[in-house]
Amino acid sequence: MENGKENKTGYRVEQDSIGAKDIPGDVYYGVQSLRAAENFRITGLNMHPEIINSLAYIKKASAITNCESGILEKKKAKAIVQACDEILTGKLHEYFIVDPIQGGAGTSLNMNANEVIANRAIEILGGKKGDYSAVNPNDDVNCGQSTNDVIPTAGKMTSLRLLQNLKKELLRLHGALCKKAEEFDHVIKMGRTQMQDAVPIRLGQEFQAYSDAIMRDIHRMDNAMDEMRTVNMGGTAVGTGINADEAYVSRIVPNLSKISDIQFVQAFDLIDATQNLDPFVAVSGAVKACAVTLSKIANDLRLMSSGPRAGFGEINLPAKQNGSSIMPGKVNPVIPEVVNQVAFNIIGNDVTITMAAEGGQLELNAFEPIVFYCLFQSIDTLAYAVQTFIDNCVTGITANEERCRQLVENSIGVITAICPHVGYEKAAEIAKKAMKTGESIRNLILREGLLSEKEMETVLDPVNMTEPGISGKELLRK
Amino acid sequence: MENGKENKTGYRVEQDSIGAKDIPGDVYYGVQSLRAAENFRITGLNMHPEIINSLAYIKKASAITNCESGILEKKKAKAIVQACDEILTGKLHEYFIVDPIQGGAGTSLNMNANEVIANRAIEILGGKKGDYSAVNPNDDVNCGQSTNDVIPTAGKMTSLRLLQNLKKELLRLHGALCKKAEEFDHVIKMGRTQMQDAVPIRLGQEFQAYSDAIMRDIHRMDNAMDEMRTVNMGGTAVGTGINADEAYVSRIVPNLSKISDIQFVQAFDLIDATQNLDPFVAVSGAVKACAVTLSKIANDLRLMSSGPRAGFGEINLPAKQNGSSIMPGKVNPVIPEVVNQVAFNIIGNDVTITMAAEGGQLELNAFEPIVFYCLFQSIDTLAYAVQTFIDNCVTGITANEERCRQLVENSIGVITAICPHVGYEKAAEIAKKAMKTGESIRNLILREGLLSEKEMETVLDPVNMTEPGISGKELLRK
Amino acid sequence: MENGKENKTGYRVEQDSIGAKDIPGDVYYGVQSLRAAENFRITGLNMHPEIINSLAYIKKASAITNCESGILEKKKAKAIVQACDEILTGKLHEYFIVDPIQGGAGTSLNMNANEVIANRAIEILGGKKGDYSAVNPNDDVNCGQSTNDVIPTAGKMTSLRLLQNLKKELLRLHGALCKKAEEFDHVIKMGRTQMQDAVPIRLGQEFQAYSDAIMRDIHRMDNAMDEMRTVNMGGTAVGTGINADEAYVSRIVPNLSKISDIQFVQAFDLIDATQNLDPFVAVSGAVKACAVTLSKIANDLRLMSSGPRAGFGEINLPAKQNGSSIMPGKVNPVIPEVVNQVAFNIIGNDVTITMAAEGGQLELNAFEPIVFYCLFQSIDTLAYAVQTFIDNCVTGITANEERCRQLVENSIGVITAICPHVGYEKAAEIAKKAMKTGESIRNLILREGLLSEKEMETVLDPVNMTEPGISGKELLRK
Amino acid sequence: MENGKENKTGYRVEQDSIGAKDIPGDVYYGVQSLRAAENFRITGLNMHPEIINSLAYIKKASAITNCESGILEKKKAKAIVQACDEILTGKLHEYFIVDPIQGGAGTSLNMNANEVIANRAIEILGGKKGDYSAVNPNDDVNCGQSTNDVIPTAGKMTSLRLLQNLKKELLRLHGALCKKAEEFDHVIKMGRTQMQDAVPIRLGQEFQAYSDAIMRDIHRMDNAMDEMRTVNMGGTAVGTGINADEAYVSRIVPNLSKISDIQFVQAFDLIDATQNLDPFVAVSGAVKACAVTLSKIANDLRLMSSGPRAGFGEINLPAKQNGSSIMPGKVNPVIPEVVNQVAFNIIGNDVTITMAAEGGQLELNAFEPIVFYCLFQSIDTLAYAVQTFIDNCVTGITANEERCRQLVENSIGVITAICPHVGYEKAAEIAKKAMKTGESIRNLILREGLLSEKEMETVLDPVNMTEPGISGKELLRK
Repeated sequence: MENGKENKTGYRVEQDSIGAKDIPGDVYYGVQSLRAAENFRITGLNMHPEIINSLAYIKKASAITNCESGILEKKKAKAIVQACDEILTGKLHEYFIVDPIQGGAGTSLNMNANEVIANRAIEILGGKKGDYSAVNPNDDVNCGQSTNDVIPTAGKMTSLRLLQNLKKELLRLHGALCKKAEEFDHVIKMGRTQMQDAVPIRLGQEFQAYSDAIMRDIHRMDNAMDEMRTVNMGGTAVGTGINADEAYVSRIVPNLSKISDIQFVQAFDLIDATQNLDPFVAVSGAVKACAVTLSKIANDLRLMSSGPRAGFGEINLPAKQNGSSIMPGKVNPVIPEVVNQVAFNIIGNDVTITMAAEGGQLELNAFEPIVFYCLFQSIDTLAYAVQTFIDNCVTGITANEERCRQLVENSIGVITAICPHVGYEKAAEIAKKAMKTGESIRNLILREGLLSEKEMETVLDPVNMTEPGISGKELLRK
Repeated sequence: MENGKENKTGYRVEQDSIGAKDIPGDVYYGVQSLRAAENFRITGLNMHPEIINSLAYIKKASAITNCESGILEKKKAKAIVQACDEILTGKLHEYFIVDPIQGGAGTSLNMNANEVIANRAIEILGGKKGDYSAVNPNDDVNCGQSTNDVIPTAGKMTSLRLLQNLKKELLRLHGALCKKAEEFDHVIKMGRTQMQDAVPIRLGQEFQAYSDAIMRDIHRMDNAMDEMRTVNMGGTAVGTGINADEAYVSRIVPNLSKISDIQFVQAFDLIDATQNLDPFVAVSGAVKACAVTLSKIANDLRLMSSGPRAGFGEINLPAKQNGSSIMPGKVNPVIPEVVNQVAFNIIGNDVTITMAAEGGQLELNAFEPIVFYCLFQSIDTLAYAVQTFIDNCVTGITANEERCRQLVENSIGVITAICPHVGYEKAAEIAKKAMKTGESIRNLILREGLLSEKEMETVLDPVNMTEPGISGKELLRK
Repeated sequence: MENGKENKTGYRVEQDSIGAKDIPGDVYYGVQSLRAAENFRITGLNMHPEIINSLAYIKKASAITNCESGILEKKKAKAIVQACDEILTGKLHEYFIVDPIQGGAGTSLNMNANEVIANRAIEILGGKKGDYSAVNPNDDVNCGQSTNDVIPTAGKMTSLRLLQNLKKELLRLHGALCKKAEEFDHVIKMGRTQMQDAVPIRLGQEFQAYSDAIMRDIHRMDNAMDEMRTVNMGGTAVGTGINADEAYVSRIVPNLSKISDIQFVQAFDLIDATQNLDPFVAVSGAVKACAVTLSKIANDLRLMSSGPRAGFGEINLPAKQNGSSIMPGKVNPVIPEVVNQVAFNIIGNDVTITMAAEGGQLELNAFEPIVFYCLFQSIDTLAYAVQTFIDNCVTGITANEERCRQLVENSIGVITAICPHVGYEKAAEIAKKAMKTGESIRNLILREGLLSEKEMETVLDPVNMTEPGISGKELLRK
Repeated sequence: MENGKENKTGYRVEQDSIGAKDIPGDVYYGVQSLRAAENFRITGLNMHPEIINSLAYIKKASAITNCESGILEKKKAKAIVQACDEILTGKLHEYFIVDPIQGGAGTSLNMNANEVIANRAIEILGGKKGDYSAVNPNDDVNCGQSTNDVIPTAGKMTSLRLLQNLKKELLRLHGALCKKAEEFDHVIKMGRTQMQDAVPIRLGQEFQAYSDAIMRDIHRMDNAMDEMRTVNMGGTAVGTGINADEAYVSRIVPNLSKISDIQFVQAFDLIDATQNLDPFVAVSGAVKACAVTLSKIANDLRLMSSGPRAGFGEINLPAKQNGSSIMPGKVNPVIPEVVNQVAFNIIGNDVTITMAAEGGQLELNAFEPIVFYCLFQSIDTLAYAVQTFIDNCVTGITANEERCRQLVENSIGVITAICPHVGYEKAAEIAKKAMKTGESIRNLILREGLLSEKEMETVLDPVNMTEPGISGKELLRK
């Protein structure tokens, strides 16, 4: 039976190497998409819209390049380009029916794109869906390409765009933290190491440290994006470029860059670039490092806002929702908690991505779909988590200055500043006595005549203690 | 402004500790659900329908128990039960609007359930949505409960049902593999260790080994399910049972078992059961062990079906879809590949679950949402992967008997059977010679006069070589 | 050149398939061990002494069984047994020179054992090391065996013994925690969920919860040990039992059980048991779940002992060493911190073990060495960590009762107990007011006339609040 | 009792905040080291010698800088410098007795260094070990420092040196692979995707791809090393620089760079640099990506060398040891297998490092010891694995050219090159027929008259098929 012919009402028949199959008459996907959709009912989710867009860019660039090289008729190329442009405006996405977790290195996704674009192009040219003599999914839409160069390239293009979005949010977070650093610059509080009272620090310094850590992650995002710029278009099946016209091979990447407005570079070694997924491991690693930084900040905020009365109680997070179904008035650090959870998920995804990358064999890694599924999720959820973190948490944080100050004055940790003046051993003795008796360090120092009141004011000046230098160094020289 | 009052057209106003908020007039969720939905836009996905059902069972059991204990009016209880029953038939699910990844240990999800059920119960009683004086989400629907006992219990109930489904599929797989073991019992082939030719084995024995490994996983699923039966209903906020009536505490778990038709046990130590998520780590570990077994089988099938001509070529997997967009006629092991990918994802999820469980603090683990999100995904995707594995792969596998036989006859590995008769050192020498010259082991043995032709037939009997015992042991006694 | 002949002074020559090699004359290992030692210089560490002992048990049991079956001369068997017994007293361990991380599924380790035992047996019989005509490492010591049954069996036997030791320490920990639970049973303190003040709890209840969680892990250890009892001795190369005498196959496991005093069961399916490492994944999963429980407890102790003055300050950990090189008098929670770190390492090891198990191919998993290296480390370091945790931390913990009490009295969380009497909404309002004004809940309740002083005493009785039931339920009935 | 005084024979007494303790009289460590050694018996292993050296560099640079700043007497400084120099020549390492896995952010290790150096310096100055009035471990050796700047800096310095060594080995591997690429450039073989026969490729191209992938990892090592150059010396306890003289703060990093001959940069934000371990996560991520690349190559080599007769049999790995204790003549891919295992371990270590980094709290991450333990192991074992991979595997690989050629000629995959000439659909039909009948593609093409013999020679030219372009493109234009 011919492809495209109607069979039972409302269906057309399509044929492939496996056999004939009924396809709903009005859909743009074809037999190969449908088989894949039936074979892989794993997550029940849709493909990420951005990878659908990436495919549209690639198919458009390929059609244009093949046309320029004289391999593809102008009329067909034009129709393919129009179909791709429609996808890029958000149309036809519902015909991408394959599951994001699928066997076969993305062939199903590539064929889904080929079929949707071919059928739409056929329509544009006045034909009937399924009549692939007009525009063929393989020979025309996929011309000069293979799943094995299209899909890794689509994965990289998508990652790049998602990373740009993440970077944008990180820059916003950096700004929000800097602002808080300034706002809290005068708030003296106890610094803690190993959660034990250590030496004074300013709350502003803590937020400044958070912002500087985020800036380091932003730089890593730039490196990560660079990892994604090298693509293997032109390599076709195994990177040797079989069946890709030489003119096409040399023009496809520049054309793709131009059309997508993203700077891509063709891999120097297309065979390497076809079979190795280590760049995705590196990108996931960078995203994971960022998640670690964020999770640590979230942990700190949860600690510092613990209380309100039986905890550290140094800062207040904005109340964004009731904290409990049973405990009235309870407000919980729900926004930092979701940041933590997203971070945990990203760390798990990194393991999945790593295993999938390690599992590649010979000329291809068949496990790209799970790599993409996890990586896109990692980047997306991190961006969303950062968004809510900024808008529903960071910008609304307030400080309990008075409590912060009292904890410092009450602390034993200030003994450290005394140390250069009396020696570690003597200082340790005083600290121990303070612990045992509950007396203040100041009193003990005075009583033992180790420093005069005036000297102590100098040495224990709280702001001095939060900046480099030996507090009261001039006293040492006496 | 009173709760429930209309504000702008089509909206009602609801109020909580945070303030007033417009709610679309016709929706069943309330202010707390909406705040949470706005705070957590992380995955954009819906809650798993089975945890919504689990919540309906719990809320129903609670209403009944509270009514029995005289804490809740019969009329209210009846309306709540009816609302829960509607949810259990699949209704109202669209009003569960909170993201599966959320801060706050599931308070948002619990409140979403409380609000939907309360509003539906209000309606049933003839009231207007939002008028919580009729049925209150906290005081009535959540009566005697806390997020901190409801949510872990819902998570366990859901896991149990999903595990039952997984077990069902594993039993089917076990059956399918056993059938293949029988079908292939006579197919002699080369066994390989470290992918090097070793000694003969029967293809049926290999499939039998797969089925026996799966049976071990099925037993682990039973243990995993037992881990999920111990619940902390009655513990309320921190496991001490504050605000839960004693009669309720003693009746809620038996009632829940009865209503849900799943055998639950109330934790002996409700405080422990409230704060510790190690049972989910254990379950995830069991699911992961199963994923490892399956992935190993998938790897083997991909190896044995490698080819068709330049690989092992011992078996054929059924062709389920075209394998390539550029290479005609190529058929790939797409089903085993999706099994691998699901396994990788489960292994990553296990890391996430472990980290989240480790991150619990004091009386509660705030990270239950990510644990559930990942665990449900692991169990579900594994069940779906097993399903397609059976139906689209295992049952259709065929053997290339002739090729299998030739590879054995051609092999050097049969020298092992000769070893007891000539000693390891001599045997190694022969093997080396065979390798170098390409000659067969048989010829070399005969030429060197180590065994007579008849003796060799006995020693190298292929079936003998695949069963315990020294092949040709009687010759040793000479 | 013949094996064993002297070459350059102080050396003997040994020969294998690869060629001849000088071996120091006085060492018990042979050419194959030395080659392996040269090929694998990865960690520079020694094999775990317990796996050396396990190999001695196996080789001893094999010699006895082969002798019983008439395959091995009595004289040789006796010498082999004596050599094994010497190893079991701790001798000859220094001749196990292969790296724990090695290629080849443990062949190097098995051959190292075969060579050391053979050479010692040769000596016992009056021969010269290296003269393998007297006792042959392959034909005699390894008789009826293969690396592929010996090494998995040795790994399981070792795991079992290490798990027994871990269980012993866990039982000690359980006891120590129970004792603390009793000691602290009267200490009322604030319970915290999401690190926010929740409702009262008793410190003893918290320690009881820790001990109950540990008991769950102890049960998991029992299951884990059962996973290790099923061994594949008799399966030889691929589980078919090639070259193992039938009498040997049926007797080896009972003999091994008897000799090692550990109950082993022969796998029903030796082929499955030879190729699949999922039991190690399951054991690692159980150890990991235990590590998670312990790490959570360690986290709690670090939180509760945070301070001394600017933290929670509810408990004191014993001071075991100076906490700082710069901050005198600082004492840090170093023992819980090492528990955390060991837990993190175990969680990482679990990933390694999982990947290695997943990587098995066809009739064998070549990656057993890394599985054993990581698993033994996980179990051992956990046992040591538990040991120091008990002796240097748990037993010395003291409570700051007065501070604990004050934090409860000062708290807003007690409003929860008021809730059933005034409703969630009203209670939330009071809580909010208390937060804002700093006033106590008691005062506000009284001032608003919600409860009389006497009623409030009943409702807010601290011990009542830590047990199931509605505090002051009788008041509800009025 | 005074410090240093003799107590029981052969012992001296040392005192710290915890109390007095007997120390063997002749050892260089002191009371704090000994307490730590007793508290942490976790791995039983020694500290990595390179971190001991790093500490010696830091203590030397500090002594010099403090002396320049006038804080430390010249005489003391000189003695400290001499003690450090002795350590750098390999002396005194045996007195570093603390376990690599230890609580307390490395205080024990820092104090171990302080005590050993102090005691040696005391000796140099003519004093008696333990008499810390001469040179004090805290006041003098640790002057201007804190564990919290010393230990992260030592960790980074050590990582840098180990990474340099790894990079050196990777460069050697790159060279070895390039050489093989050249050697095998003419060997036509079957390319495989998803382990199914795809299209021809040259063995040299495959090795070139491996070498290019390794070069990408080498670049990542450079980035990783840069992450390690930013240190927080001068930050002391929490990064505020308390107790560090301003002159010291500004000179310590340049001095350290000079003395160690490694370019370091002082962190712009010392507080951030003190508390955040994300740079180690990033480095571990880079090492992991490299491990993934190597493991993939190892997998490929194991696949391509599978056989000798029942596998792919395309290449031969050099035989480095007997492969089996039972199967004579068997040679296994043991070197690639150890590469795989090291990779698995690194991937697990990355999880551990990530968790430890995530677990940092407030001003410090207490989990540096496990981060260093795992990271050093990852880098070291990878370097050793690469070493043996080059010397015992890669350089000795040979190709089975004839077999490679036959597999191509025999294959169906060449149909891909025919595709542009006959269309995908027709080509798929031919391929299917070839599969079914066993006939060659060439014969079928000829018989169906699709191409002439001469045309086919052009189209199926094997070398052409391995380079970009449509094979026989000129025929299309006809």
